[in-house]
Amino acid sequence: MSVPSSATISPLSNVADAPVTVAVTGAAGQIGYALLFRLAAGALLGPERSIRLHLLEVPQARAALDGVIMELEDAAFPALQGIVATDDPMVAFRDAEQVFLVGARPRGPGMQRGDLLQANADIFRTQGRALDAVASRSVRVVVVGNPANTNALIAQRHAPSLDASCFSAMTRLDHNRALAQLAAKLRCGVADIRRLCVWGNHSSTQYPDVSYATVAGQPLAAQLEPAWLEQQFLPAVTERGAAIIQARGASSAASAASAAIDHMRDWVLGSTDWVSMALPADGAYDIPEGLVYSFPVQCSDGQASIVRELDISAASRERMDRSQDELLQELEAIRSLLP
Amino acid sequence: MSVPSSATISPLSNVADAPVTVAVTGAAGQIGYALLFRLAAGALLGPERSIRLHLLEVPQARAALDGVIMELEDAAFPALQGIVATDDPMVAFRDAEQVFLVGARPRGPGMQRGDLLQANADIFRTQGRALDAVASRSVRVVVVGNPANTNALIAQRHAPSLDASCFSAMTRLDHNRALAQLAAKLRCGVADIRRLCVWGNHSSTQYPDVSYATVAGQPLAAQLEPAWLEQQFLPAVTERGAAIIQARGASSAASAASAAIDHMRDWVLGSTDWVSMALPADGAYDIPEGLVYSFPVQCSDGQASIVRELDISAASRERMDRSQDELLQELEAIRSLLP
Repeated sequence: MSVPSSATISPLSNVADAPVTVAVTGAAGQIGYALLFRLAAGALLGPERSIRLHLLEVPQARAALDGVIMELEDAAFPALQGIVATDDPMVAFRDAEQVFLVGARPRGPGMQRGDLLQANADIFRTQGRALDAVASRSVRVVVVGNPANTNALIAQRHAPSLDASCFSAMTRLDHNRALAQLAAKLRCGVADIRRLCVWGNHSSTQYPDVSYATVAGQPLAAQLEPAWLEQQFLPAVTERGAAIIQARGASSAASAASAAIDHMRDWVLGSTDWVSMALPADGAYDIPEGLVYSFPVQCSDGQASIVRELDISAASRERMDRSQDELLQELEAIRSLLP
Repeated sequence: MSVPSSATISPLSNVADAPVTVAVTGAAGQIGYALLFRLAAGALLGPERSIRLHLLEVPQARAALDGVIMELEDAAFPALQGIVATDDPMVAFRDAEQVFLVGARPRGPGMQRGDLLQANADIFRTQGRALDAVASRSVRVVVVGNPANTNALIAQRHAPSLDASCFSAMTRLDHNRALAQLAAKLRCGVADIRRLCVWGNHSSTQYPDVSYATVAGQPLAAQLEPAWLEQQFLPAVTERGAAIIQARGASSAASAASAAIDHMRDWVLGSTDWVSMALPADGAYDIPEGLVYSFPVQCSDGQASIVRELDISAASRERMDRSQDELLQELEAIRSLLP
C-alpha cells in the first residue's frame, strides 16, 4: 500500500450540488463489482444526489480496476460526478463521507489464523491512519473485509482524532440471512419480522438472537420449536456462506454488497426497525469497552444507537460470551500493532 | 429447453399489493447476476413495488442458479415477493410483464456465424412461442443475448398473438457508451448531452449518430473535429466491448445489466430524452418492415415511439444501410426457422 498513488479523475458530470464522496476498497473484487454499480445508481442517497467514487485497489489489480471504471463510465449514471482510482489510502479517503472497507487479505495456503490477523492488521492500521488524516470528520466507515470486527477495531484505534462512533463492522449480512431463514420457515415476508438481532463477531461464533423478535406483532420464538431454532436455524445462518460457495462455486458477493448498502443507508437515513451493526463497545451489556461487537441498533438522525437494557437470558449470555471471548483472542493476536 | 420444468417457489413476502412479474433468462450468468439484485432492490419501479422474479436457466446451470437464489433470499429485499426457478419457458414467462432475454448461445470452438445464428434461432423461437402462449398481453420484452436484433425478430415472429411493439432488442449499452465517450471528450455530464442516437444492429455495424445531438442546448457536432468523431469516437464505441474484456479479463456484465434496466425503466416510466432501442421497423426511414432495427426513440405512457422525420444525410444513410444489410443477411440465415 506504500506504492506511489496513481490517481485518475474522470469528470463525468457538472451537476451543481455538492457531491458526496464514497470510498470503496477492494474495488475490483467481486463484492466491489456488485457494490459500485448500485452505489452509482443511487442506492444510498437516491439517484438525484451526485456522488464521487474513490476506489482503492492494490497495484496488481489495477488492470481489472480500469475495466470496472470503464464499465461504470459506460453505465452513464447521471449522478456519478467523478471517479478516483488509486492504490494510496491517503488519496482514496480524502474528504470521504462514506467508506466501505471491503478489501482484505484472504487466507493463503499454509497461513495460520494468527498470520491472517497480522496481515490484515497491517492493512487496516494503514487505512485507519489515512482515515484519521484525511477523511471527513463525520465519516462513516463500515468494514466488510474479514476478520471484519477486529479489522474495524484496528482501524478505529489508529484514528484517534475521529470519534469512535465513525467506525463499524458489518453483521447485516448475518442479520439478513437470519431474516430470510425465519421468513421462509414462517411463510411470511421479511418485513413482517421485527426486533431480530445478531450479537458478537462476524464469524461462526455470532449469535443470531430471536428472543425479542416479533412476527406480525406477535412473539416469534413462541411460534417455533426450540429444537428447530437450535439445530436448523442457527447452523443455517452461520454456515450460509459455505452453502453459497458450494452452490455457486464462488463466495457471496451480491448479497454481501446488498447488506453493506443496507448497513450504510440505514446508518445515514435511519432505520425503521432494529438492525445489527458491530460497533465499538461502550460498556453496554458488559462487553469490554472498545471491542467491535455486534449489537441490536436503532439508527436515527445519522446516529447508530445500541438498543439498551434488554433482559439477557443465561443461554443468550453464554453465546454472547463465547463470541466475546473469540474477539478478545483476536485482539491478543494483534495487540502489538495497536498504538 | 424441453426438459420438464422444476419450479420452486419461495414465498418471501406477503405484501398486499399486486406484484409485477419480471422474467430473466440466463439468470445464473454474469449479466443476470448483475441484473437480478438491482431488479429486486426496486431499480425498475421503486423499492415499494412488490416483484416476483421468474428465472430461466438451462439445467446445467441449475446449481449456480440455486446459489444466486440463495443470495437473493439473503439480501432480504422487502419487495421481493417470490422467486420461480425453472428450465421451462412456459413456466418462466407465465403472466410476465417485463422480460429480459439475457441468455443466448455463445459462439463455441469451430462454430461459424451461421451455426451461431441457427443455434440461437432455436432458443428464441421456443421462447417466442412461450411468450405468445403465457405472457401478459402487454408484456415488454428486451433481448440482450446476441445476436440481439435477430433474436428479437425471431421471438417476435413466433408470437403472433402479441403486438409487435411488445418486442425490442437492447442498443442502450451502445447509446450509453457513446454518451460516456462524448461526455469525457467534452468534459461535461452525460445528462448535458441530448438527442444522441444509435441506428441499426447491436454489432460492429451500429451507427452512433451525433447529427442531432446537443450539449447544454448547443449543437454538439460543431464542437468536435470530424476526424475525432470518425477515427476516435466511432471505433471507441463499437470496440468498447473488446476493450473491457482486455482490461477485466471478462466481458461487460454490470454495464450491460445497467443498460437493460435503463431500457426497461424508460420504456415503462417514460424517457426525458431520446433513447436508443431496437424495435420492429414499421416503415420509418425506409427500413424494411419487421427488421428489428435501432432507432431514436421517445417513451411516454408506456409506449416507445420512433422519432420520425429526421433529415438523414447521405453519409448517415450509408452507415444506416450497412447495418440494415447486415440484418438482412442475418435474416436470410434464419429464414427457414420463421413461421
